[in-house]
Amino acid sequence: MSSKRILLSHGSGGVETTSILEELILKKLSEKLIKVPGGYGLDVMDDSAAIPLSDGSFIVVSIDSYTVNPIVFPGGDLGVLAASGTINDVLMMGGRPIAVLDAIVVEEGFPLDSLESIVSSMLGVLGKLGIPLIGGDFKVMPRGQLDKVIITTAGIGIAEKPIVDTELRIGDKIIVTGTIGDHGATIMALQQGIEISSSGLKSDVKPLTDLMLPLLEKYRDYIHAARDPTRGGLAMLLNDWAKSTGALIIVDEEKIPVREPVRVYSEMLGIDPLALASEGVAVLGVDPDAADEILEFIKYKLGYEDASIIGEVRSHEKYKGLVVLETVSGSYRVLDPPRGELVPRIC
Amino acid sequence: MSSKRILLSHGSGGVETTSILEELILKKLSEKLIKVPGGYGLDVMDDSAAIPLSDGSFIVVSIDSYTVNPIVFPGGDLGVLAASGTINDVLMMGGRPIAVLDAIVVEEGFPLDSLESIVSSMLGVLGKLGIPLIGGDFKVMPRGQLDKVIITTAGIGIAEKPIVDTELRIGDKIIVTGTIGDHGATIMALQQGIEISSSGLKSDVKPLTDLMLPLLEKYRDYIHAARDPTRGGLAMLLNDWAKSTGALIIVDEEKIPVREPVRVYSEMLGIDPLALASEGVAVLGVDPDAADEILEFIKYKLGYEDASIIGEVRSHEKYKGLVVLETVSGSYRVLDPPRGELVPRIC
Repeated sequence: MSSKRILLSHGSGGVETTSILEELILKKLSEKLIKVPGGYGLDVMDDSAAIPLSDGSFIVVSIDSYTVNPIVFPGGDLGVLAASGTINDVLMMGGRPIAVLDAIVVEEGFPLDSLESIVSSMLGVLGKLGIPLIGGDFKVMPRGQLDKVIITTAGIGIAEKPIVDTELRIGDKIIVTGTIGDHGATIMALQQGIEISSSGLKSDVKPLTDLMLPLLEKYRDYIHAARDPTRGGLAMLLNDWAKSTGALIIVDEEKIPVREPVRVYSEMLGIDPLALASEGVAVLGVDPDAADEILEFIKYKLGYEDASIIGEVRSHEKYKGLVVLETVSGSYRVLDPPRGELVPRIC
Repeated sequence: MSSKRILLSHGSGGVETTSILEELILKKLSEKLIKVPGGYGLDVMDDSAAIPLSDGSFIVVSIDSYTVNPIVFPGGDLGVLAASGTINDVLMMGGRPIAVLDAIVVEEGFPLDSLESIVSSMLGVLGKLGIPLIGGDFKVMPRGQLDKVIITTAGIGIAEKPIVDTELRIGDKIIVTGTIGDHGATIMALQQGIEISSSGLKSDVKPLTDLMLPLLEKYRDYIHAARDPTRGGLAMLLNDWAKSTGALIIVDEEKIPVREPVRVYSEMLGIDPLALASEGVAVLGVDPDAADEILEFIKYKLGYEDASIIGEVRSHEKYKGLVVLETVSGSYRVLDPPRGELVPRIC
């Protein structure tokens, strides 16, 4: 393997990311070293890890490095993303976020006011939610050795009962809580140099506390899986779920909410919106008996009016571990996990 | 401040780092947002934060981004550093490390075998100590946008009683557990292009579990402060302690263990070894009545034979919050906190 090199696709959150993590990390570790006794570690490959506490609850922990380019975009910036993304990972594991830590690496010569603006955005998200920043790191790399700035955040939460996506069951309904691909389409168009100011394209980045905390309080036992469709988009997320349960996930394309500008730009960019990142959307696998009630609650009590039941988990003799899309035209096609580089520095 | 830019010195771990963190972060946050109720957050500016649990113990959490250049050096590499540095931060807070998370950002085109070697080093440290890797992230930045690779690690530990350095007291003795500046001198010489293969220069990077866990078990109540002298070295660490206690710290230069090659190269590079980073040394503030016994234990039971009592904390009417060095020649001088850029990407 001496001549192999890292490709952009290794970081796209699709098939190649899964395989390099397998090769670099998972294959190298004994089972003992990826598991948390009584909790959930790398063995479940979920949004966060969960460590059991003596009182029966769990500490939920997550880490992500945010490299998005451009660092400021319609709807947000690197700071909002770094705070929201990590808070959302804690929430998707069923955790109530209680603290965040940050590690900033910045290029020498970077304008201090730009950095201040991004950091203020990050602190603004935390401040609004009352989540303290309890620790951090700050490094500078010499000019030319880093493009602008990377912020890594770690999120800490408490979960009474973590949501582990392997608990998704046959029959469960799949709910998405908002429109798909807004963040990805926005960043991608900007990276391609497409003028988007009057397009209506806008990142959906936001912390999902106002969605997930009420849901956890009221419907925790009916929610079997939760994840946010960031890198790799809805396509990767559903494929991960299909693979881990060994079931068939069938999705009705017509039910997947996609905003018109995202649809337009995806076509222009030649990309499936289902493979584009969202940063303010949750995908839930819920008990079929409670699905309609939960959807109503999400739409009308919590104000996520684009929420939709898009499909369900089925057992199938032949199509095990696959995602099948019933297209608008009524035909069926397998929705493959994304492959290739899509777009670098999306988050 | 619109024309100000980030300087290398902002990341050197000295005076300028303190001031930019003050400006960017601490000034922006209300007290509520840096404190952990019943625990320790950014308000104590320690190696880790500590969150209280219902059983009376604490979760200790730390984060650091490792950017060291070169990524492989005598005595270690980026992977060993990323695992050890974060484990040590947890230990210095009195925590027993129980898990690590990592976030890798790598440049497109980076050789896969080099990355594999670094990641294996990191996993090797964890494996040897039986500390699981429970979560992570992996991103790729396009060619030319990042020099090689950055690894950010978050460490999680459990502390019965966190070591908070503000508890350093008048009369306490200061112990260093090994020679000072080995890591910093090695990296600095390499960055200057100095040939060091036969110099004896070698990074001291290592996890300090075999030092701190026995010490915590046997002498926890006598240890009032613990920190590792990484960026900014012993000089910054002691100044931080002097400032936070408002006391005078007096240090006997002759008692500070510095290896001969470090002394030689420091002179050649025109730098004070006391400002150079160590990555396998702890500095402890201990009860004076137990200091000699603890030193014996560290030297002869734990095998840290270079350990030394280098000074003590005194009250002083005039020299409040200062560090004074009694030099080898018998004169006294104030040891200022490091200022300026020293060396970028030291850790």
